[in-house]
Amino acid sequence: MTKVYSLSQISNALENIDVVTCIEEGFIAYSRNEVVVPPVGEMLFEDPRGEAHIKYGFIKNNDYFVVKIASGFYENFKFGLPTNSGLMLLFSQKTGELLAILLDEGQLTAVRTAAAGAVVAKYMAPTTVHRIGIIGAGDQARRQLLMLGSVIACRDVTVWGVSQEEVDLYKQDMETLGYSVDTTLDPAVVAKTCNLIVTVTPARHPLLHNDKVRPGTHITAIGADTPEKQELDPKILARADIVVADSIEQCQSRGEIYQATKASLLEDTKPIELGNLILNQQFGRSSDDQLTIADLTGVAVQDLQISKAVYKALS
Amino acid sequence: MTKVYSLSQISNALENIDVVTCIEEGFIAYSRNEVVVPPVGEMLFEDPRGEAHIKYGFIKNNDYFVVKIASGFYENFKFGLPTNSGLMLLFSQKTGELLAILLDEGQLTAVRTAAAGAVVAKYMAPTTVHRIGIIGAGDQARRQLLMLGSVIACRDVTVWGVSQEEVDLYKQDMETLGYSVDTTLDPAVVAKTCNLIVTVTPARHPLLHNDKVRPGTHITAIGADTPEKQELDPKILARADIVVADSIEQCQSRGEIYQATKASLLEDTKPIELGNLILNQQFGRSSDDQLTIADLTGVAVQDLQISKAVYKALS
Repeated sequence: MTKVYSLSQISNALENIDVVTCIEEGFIAYSRNEVVVPPVGEMLFEDPRGEAHIKYGFIKNNDYFVVKIASGFYENFKFGLPTNSGLMLLFSQKTGELLAILLDEGQLTAVRTAAAGAVVAKYMAPTTVHRIGIIGAGDQARRQLLMLGSVIACRDVTVWGVSQEEVDLYKQDMETLGYSVDTTLDPAVVAKTCNLIVTVTPARHPLLHNDKVRPGTHITAIGADTPEKQELDPKILARADIVVADSIEQCQSRGEIYQATKASLLEDTKPIELGNLILNQQFGRSSDDQLTIADLTGVAVQDLQISKAVYKALS
Repeated sequence: MTKVYSLSQISNALENIDVVTCIEEGFIAYSRNEVVVPPVGEMLFEDPRGEAHIKYGFIKNNDYFVVKIASGFYENFKFGLPTNSGLMLLFSQKTGELLAILLDEGQLTAVRTAAAGAVVAKYMAPTTVHRIGIIGAGDQARRQLLMLGSVIACRDVTVWGVSQEEVDLYKQDMETLGYSVDTTLDPAVVAKTCNLIVTVTPARHPLLHNDKVRPGTHITAIGADTPEKQELDPKILARADIVVADSIEQCQSRGEIYQATKASLLEDTKPIELGNLILNQQFGRSSDDQLTIADLTGVAVQDLQISKAVYKALS
């Protein structure tokens, strides 16, 4: 009875799913305290260096519960294997039966992460986005831009990366898909020219500095999902008119909000949770001069939502 | 590359596996601190009442890590479904790849639990077992007796259960398999007549009382795996010459050792860990007059060992 779905089946199913709405509904349920997300399980390996995380949870009185297992093995490139892999398991919340195994190889995590960026842009971007800035030029930086396409009309982009080769490749890929892309190796260029910026790097020191960021900008910080990572100068959060967290609880111990709070530059009470912002839009942007920030660390309800949607589309 | 194995494939593979040795090696590795077993993940559901547990771990510098998901849904009988189900996932500890999905429907847990009973009997039973006593007449009570068959020559059995119907059925099933079974509805009859006793019930109050248990008996307590469950009068543990725990750590918060410690009848320092007893047999029985107890609460290393063995046999 258990169905096993391959990555290609899952990818086909995704084409018919409105993932932005699906993830948006997840954030609403999360902020309404309808979601149970126990602490993440973790295993750390030494030789070779690797890690595995188990995220699991459920929406109360829903039909399903989900367990996601994701791994990162940092020497996999030596064997020609991807660093990250994983799967999601969908169970019945009524009987405990294993309904589906989604062998998504970590792709659903990438999709739900990109979709969260689009949810944020839908509710927080300035009325007119004249240029999108992308800090980072990897896989998730591509996905973020593509997913923004469903909620933002602008197709003019400036991308920052660590090498000209990397940003040229990004430009080439994204221009094939209908975007017009400028490249830079200076993050300040992105800050100066773009009013919707997405940061998608594994940086551990700020890439965007406060004195470069202009009023009226919205920044979505995707990269920092651990206590060590950081992409934004914490003064940006101090100065921002609105700071949003995907999960207030998680952002107390990781990401940009954690960094700014630790630096005593951000009051605990300033961040608003994304689901609450969606539900109460009076908490949102009230003028196009405001500087707004969203800090996304990734919440298990996103996994729940996307795996449910894929399962329903496939079964 | 991920292989998915059904219960029938797994059952076939088990026929060629020496599960008692496999589980014994697991207990040794565990007591040598070679095993990493993080805290169990738990989800509790209310309507209908159910629970799911995630157990996971690995032997350091081994080839694999394992994640087991097991559920219990207590109204499943209404839908004609078994209460318990589950699966095991075997990953490479070198690359994080998902190697195998074992859709064992909870059966491997039952087998590894039975095998632990046999490991205990191998090292702790009196030289001559003249009659085996089984307290409980369910599925695991059958499995315990059958697995004991591989390490104990005795085929004379007295079984206790809550109804004559239940014990008659047990007798019928086990006599077909070469055992000679007496039945009783009084646990004291088991205590009086048997010198190797296995308790396998979900009882929350003692079934075996101290004044009935004779010197020279070994008792393996399987049923109590939570802080609430209890099958033995704690005075039996106080009086016992040797008390063994499958995991000293787990037995501090669940099972018979926990109950006896809580009742101030057992010193913290008295229990010996099963793997240490196997490695240092001078800790074991030194005369056939000794009363010995083993408290088994179930350790994730058992899941690790059995899933590895099944995977190797199948691949």
